[in-house]
Amino acid sequence: MQVLKLGGSVITVKDEPMTVDRENVRRLCEEVKAAWPMPLIIVHGGGSFGHPVASKYGIADGFTSERQVPGYARTHQAMVVLNSVFVDALLDLGVPSVSVTPSSFIATSDGRINAVDFWIVGRLVVRGILPVLYGDAVLDRRRGFSILSGDQLAVRLATELGASRLVFGVDVDGVFTSNPKLVPGARLIERLPLKKLEGFIEIGRALTTDVTGGMLGKVSEAMEAVEAGVEVQIVNATKRDVILKALRGEPVTGTILTR
Amino acid sequence: MQVLKLGGSVITVKDEPMTVDRENVRRLCEEVKAAWPMPLIIVHGGGSFGHPVASKYGIADGFTSERQVPGYARTHQAMVVLNSVFVDALLDLGVPSVSVTPSSFIATSDGRINAVDFWIVGRLVVRGILPVLYGDAVLDRRRGFSILSGDQLAVRLATELGASRLVFGVDVDGVFTSNPKLVPGARLIERLPLKKLEGFIEIGRALTTDVTGGMLGKVSEAMEAVEAGVEVQIVNATKRDVILKALRGEPVTGTILTR
Repeated sequence: MQVLKLGGSVITVKDEPMTVDRENVRRLCEEVKAAWPMPLIIVHGGGSFGHPVASKYGIADGFTSERQVPGYARTHQAMVVLNSVFVDALLDLGVPSVSVTPSSFIATSDGRINAVDFWIVGRLVVRGILPVLYGDAVLDRRRGFSILSGDQLAVRLATELGASRLVFGVDVDGVFTSNPKLVPGARLIERLPLKKLEGFIEIGRALTTDVTGGMLGKVSEAMEAVEAGVEVQIVNATKRDVILKALRGEPVTGTILTR
Repeated sequence: MQVLKLGGSVITVKDEPMTVDRENVRRLCEEVKAAWPMPLIIVHGGGSFGHPVASKYGIADGFTSERQVPGYARTHQAMVVLNSVFVDALLDLGVPSVSVTPSSFIATSDGRINAVDFWIVGRLVVRGILPVLYGDAVLDRRRGFSILSGDQLAVRLATELGASRLVFGVDVDGVFTSNPKLVPGARLIERLPLKKLEGFIEIGRALTTDVTGGMLGKVSEAMEAVEAGVEVQIVNATKRDVILKALRGEPVTGTILTR
């Protein structure tokens, strides 16, 4: 079984609130359809749907004021809308997809998933159905509520359900030696062992900046899956057929995280 | 806390597949808004969204063939769409509502809910949020999948979360001595004790027909809540202000089930 995490930046239009990147969604769903049937779980991010409203109301900071309550509700509903567009596109192509709502069965503790029962998700896969989950506003047992990132969720699903591979589809080619959007000489790291990764995280902490160009949080989350023996791959989902090839196990440009 | 179950026949247009009764939805959401804030959970039925596709693929009969798999996916997605219309209408009126997806955290056994953790639903209510659930296509531990009726779900929520009142909003005034749509002399039963109810159920079984005009399944489900001390009321949600008054505890035409 594989878990595919699609970044919010890939399926939505950045800087345009509540706007789906319909071309990318259609193309990615067609790539999933081309690889179908296969045991697969998809998790997608929030992009311009979840993030603006969550950030406006400070949902990730936990409950501090009654004024956040409508923001919690609106953040979740924004994600429901984005998820519906994605699931509808898959259903239209004949891929039997079922939306699974994270906030309906996951409550975090201090922003982290504790014990969660993924029986339903695993069972859907066995039944030949594609579960589609997403980053979501969730209740938090300590902070009131929190934001559960699609990255954390994808890693936990892959680890707990024993996935063979976890593919992160993002809007760059993988992890670079420095931020490829800022540094011209940045080089793609094709294989990144955990040891080296820890070095990166330390550099990032020291500089209080993300030297890898937004990739640091993702790879930090992914360490858990790597340690559990899941092959973790970071690839560019904005380029045609990269996700299709990754799902088929064919070689693609990207970064593989190794133990 | 109260649980309000709204029948699918009230919020959708019968005989028109996938058609919302927008006038009823808007009016009912305004009535909820007028009673808000209050500790409340809403459960709605499927009407012309869930039923036609579920019935076409025989989802309620459980898994018998791979051909049902797309039907399972489509039944759920139809309910997601209907639920989104309802939640959006509440959000537009300023009622902080959160969609809670039954199939994401409930798997039935032979069509019945066993042990389920309603912590998230209860916690949302405490947080001042209105959880909105619905009848859904769910995985079934014995049959593969099944249809979880909004009635069963509403009764379990009311019973397990200790609701004081469970209001069924339907498209007739309550339980009648015979089917009011067929028998001109049918009389509304204002108070229906469990004992009498059991008699009704026996008559219904003997005739293998529903003498109460579709109300028998509902009242059978509701017995569990009545036994647990929940006040159960069946009222006409198609008539203006009936739901508002019921939520406020004011007297309305209808049937009260008693021990």
